[in-house]
Amino acid sequence: MERLSAWWKRLVRSSSILRFVDINLRGIGQVMFQNNPLSGAFFLAGVGWGSYAAGVPQVAIAGLLAVVVATLTARWLHADEASLASGLYGYNAFLVGLALATFLSPGAMLWAYVVLGAAVSVVVSLGIANVVKPWGVASLTFAFVLTTWLLLLATYGFSGLVGKALPSAGVVAAFQPYETNPLQLADLARGVLHSISQVFLKGSGVAALLLLVGLAVNSPVAAAFAVGGAIVAVATAHLLGAESELITGGLLGFSPVLTAIALGTVFYKPSWRVAAYTALGTVFTVIAQSALDVALTPFAIPALTAPFVLVSWLFLLPRQCFEPASTISIDREKLAA
Amino acid sequence: MERLSAWWKRLVRSSSILRFVDINLRGIGQVMFQNNPLSGAFFLAGVGWGSYAAGVPQVAIAGLLAVVVATLTARWLHADEASLASGLYGYNAFLVGLALATFLSPGAMLWAYVVLGAAVSVVVSLGIANVVKPWGVASLTFAFVLTTWLLLLATYGFSGLVGKALPSAGVVAAFQPYETNPLQLADLARGVLHSISQVFLKGSGVAALLLLVGLAVNSPVAAAFAVGGAIVAVATAHLLGAESELITGGLLGFSPVLTAIALGTVFYKPSWRVAAYTALGTVFTVIAQSALDVALTPFAIPALTAPFVLVSWLFLLPRQCFEPASTISIDREKLAA
Amino acid sequence: MERLSAWWKRLVRSSSILRFVDINLRGIGQVMFQNNPLSGAFFLAGVGWGSYAAGVPQVAIAGLLAVVVATLTARWLHADEASLASGLYGYNAFLVGLALATFLSPGAMLWAYVVLGAAVSVVVSLGIANVVKPWGVASLTFAFVLTTWLLLLATYGFSGLVGKALPSAGVVAAFQPYETNPLQLADLARGVLHSISQVFLKGSGVAALLLLVGLAVNSPVAAAFAVGGAIVAVATAHLLGAESELITGGLLGFSPVLTAIALGTVFYKPSWRVAAYTALGTVFTVIAQSALDVALTPFAIPALTAPFVLVSWLFLLPRQCFEPASTISIDREKLAA
Repeated sequence: MERLSAWWKRLVRSSSILRFVDINLRGIGQVMFQNNPLSGAFFLAGVGWGSYAAGVPQVAIAGLLAVVVATLTARWLHADEASLASGLYGYNAFLVGLALATFLSPGAMLWAYVVLGAAVSVVVSLGIANVVKPWGVASLTFAFVLTTWLLLLATYGFSGLVGKALPSAGVVAAFQPYETNPLQLADLARGVLHSISQVFLKGSGVAALLLLVGLAVNSPVAAAFAVGGAIVAVATAHLLGAESELITGGLLGFSPVLTAIALGTVFYKPSWRVAAYTALGTVFTVIAQSALDVALTPFAIPALTAPFVLVSWLFLLPRQCFEPASTISIDREKLAA
Repeated sequence: MERLSAWWKRLVRSSSILRFVDINLRGIGQVMFQNNPLSGAFFLAGVGWGSYAAGVPQVAIAGLLAVVVATLTARWLHADEASLASGLYGYNAFLVGLALATFLSPGAMLWAYVVLGAAVSVVVSLGIANVVKPWGVASLTFAFVLTTWLLLLATYGFSGLVGKALPSAGVVAAFQPYETNPLQLADLARGVLHSISQVFLKGSGVAALLLLVGLAVNSPVAAAFAVGGAIVAVATAHLLGAESELITGGLLGFSPVLTAIALGTVFYKPSWRVAAYTALGTVFTVIAQSALDVALTPFAIPALTAPFVLVSWLFLLPRQCFEPASTISIDREKLAA
Repeated sequence: MERLSAWWKRLVRSSSILRFVDINLRGIGQVMFQNNPLSGAFFLAGVGWGSYAAGVPQVAIAGLLAVVVATLTARWLHADEASLASGLYGYNAFLVGLALATFLSPGAMLWAYVVLGAAVSVVVSLGIANVVKPWGVASLTFAFVLTTWLLLLATYGFSGLVGKALPSAGVVAAFQPYETNPLQLADLARGVLHSISQVFLKGSGVAALLLLVGLAVNSPVAAAFAVGGAIVAVATAHLLGAESELITGGLLGFSPVLTAIALGTVFYKPSWRVAAYTALGTVFTVIAQSALDVALTPFAIPALTAPFVLVSWLFLLPRQCFEPASTISIDREKLAA
């Protein structure tokens, strides 16, 4: 693996086109905190497969377009070179592209929206990084969440964009399960895999395996925490009596997966105490996911990764309680520093 | 009183069990800014009486369980010893326990929820304290509000927890009074007392008197501002034409009571100018209470003490305009420093 | 113009009454970032004409009352003299007065509400300025937005105040145009003018012209960016397929107009790169306007200038990417410094 990495680095130095490819792949890798072009390539493969299998190839294309636009925007804004090279201006845009193409109907206006959203996500990302800097926490995917929420909400006021896959609005109502069959172990296993693939807005076991490989090539510990976080999330949601379809679809688990990776492997120096703290954060992310799903009911938009961002910020802010990671989080901290 | 205090301090030094009791009582005392175990004991008595009289003894028990869990959590997180000893990691959890047991149906899942909520409230409290530190303001009860909102919202997505006493959802509608009899002076007096007891989510005159005694043993001025704040709140709400049941139930007055104590006796050096400023803040807290009650209508959750937190922050942020309290606020500032 | 200005400055120095008038006119001028009493006078004339023509003279009177109350409040709070003299404590209050009298029914309680809101807006303005200080951005009109939102929301809980002109509540619903005739060029021109006058909550071409003159006497560039921002906003809204009535009424354009002035002429040193960045921010403000209009549907309150504040903050936070304006923004920065 190290020889492969050294070979790639030589190639990248020799070609400005490959350098551009490298930045964009790292941008995709940073969705799950991996500053590694190979991770990004596997993630892109997972997203590509998931989009193709679901009959929506435009989703993967929109993600790719968005990350390219974001890299160009970051350059135009003279953003910090080291952060740019680590892909830190690309991951929010990649998710913006995936989300817009997932929730809105295809058409010329969609592509204009993706380009606009990708460019704005870089501005927002730079701004949020400045906002959270004093507290030493990273901006996570908040730029993606905020930009996408605004873009999706706005479509309800425009005839040019149709939110075909957006949730329908309503006032908050008492819990009503619509699937009463008891879940089998196979259903729960499906929930675990989909919790991982839903980080990229896909419900696909194959995509989940490609994502896990992408994690493992850069950080086997991150892959382990992703699986562990997904298991904790599915178990918690099941114990609390969440809707079966949400559990098996991975829709209560993708934010907890990100929380588990972030708290357990990126920002704190690993220890048993950190692992227990991460478990608490992961369980609470399931609750925050349900809470934000409920809170967004009147607005007819999805929670995206807001539960991950909220809980991870809450659990990263008491920095004095744990030792920070030394080397692992350098790229992230660079953005925050 | 001082001999009693000295005797208790000697006892606490001699026994780690009594030290633990002391911390938890101070935690309860800090709900109304009193770093005094005797105040905490009176507050606990008030809550106990209010719960017993209302036929919901589990409410007081949940509060007690939560404050104990919070103290243990704070120790596990190696939180600042001086803040811990002052009860600053307990008051949010105590309120979380009271609120969860007030709004949710009893059952095994409720107790798990109380333990989880109490532990998370400490994390949130540490995080919020770090967030607000640069502006020199205290974190107030925001950790309670945020943690409880998430926990209550989430129940609408879980079959395991039932929000039996949560408000029902709706869209915002024009004002419709459902009690048209003119209020008598006795009703307004009841509103004043209940405004004080509702700080601990209780509508009980006896509880209010126990709370006032608890305030007076540590700070007669705080007791006076609590009564004054309640009177201003009830009068303001009445003049603006608020719903009678809300006024007499103290539901528009508990946040203003906390604002009056905080602005008038805790954070600023008392003066006539500060008293007038406190009156303005107290009046505006009534408006913020009504505003947040309305804003939360679609979400079917209560405003808790959010109006107090919001208005007190707004009125504490222009620090350059008033002289800070010298000794009174030391404990609070320790958390913020 | 310079002789007029020098003559006025001599007059102001010689009379404390004229000094008071000067502060209040500058306060009105600061709504559109102009620290100039003549600009304020033209703005007041525009608002006065718009109110008179619409048969609601109380709106202009409420604005005037509010700015006077705010100036007195700022003095009582010992606010910074230089900021006070530049009108920085008046513009939020002026807008609070206009908004309350625009959306609520007239009556004694309205005037009490205007006085209270004006006084509180100064406290909030001082507090927000302290909050945003670490990031070097200005507080913009957020104090107006926050204060007015709370005051308007609260009216749904009070019989004493009736929100006759407030939007009605609902859950978010798919886009439904209620005016299908294609827009003519004259409609779009009307939309451009009304986008400018709606900054002061008025839909009036004459008012728009008076406002443009008020801008031009202090900064012709600001007047140009106001017109440019309005054109960009109307074109964007039209391309995205927004509701015709909203476009021609200027209701999607007033926030973009403010964004264009702020980004293009106040905070950054003008350049082609800044102009392109301003265009991006102006387009995104149209989207944020639609998004916040949708998001506020369940709450039955208007978005006010929140879209301008949100997008301008997001586009001002990445300060490292552009050179700050040197002299133009001194007054604003004084508040933030």
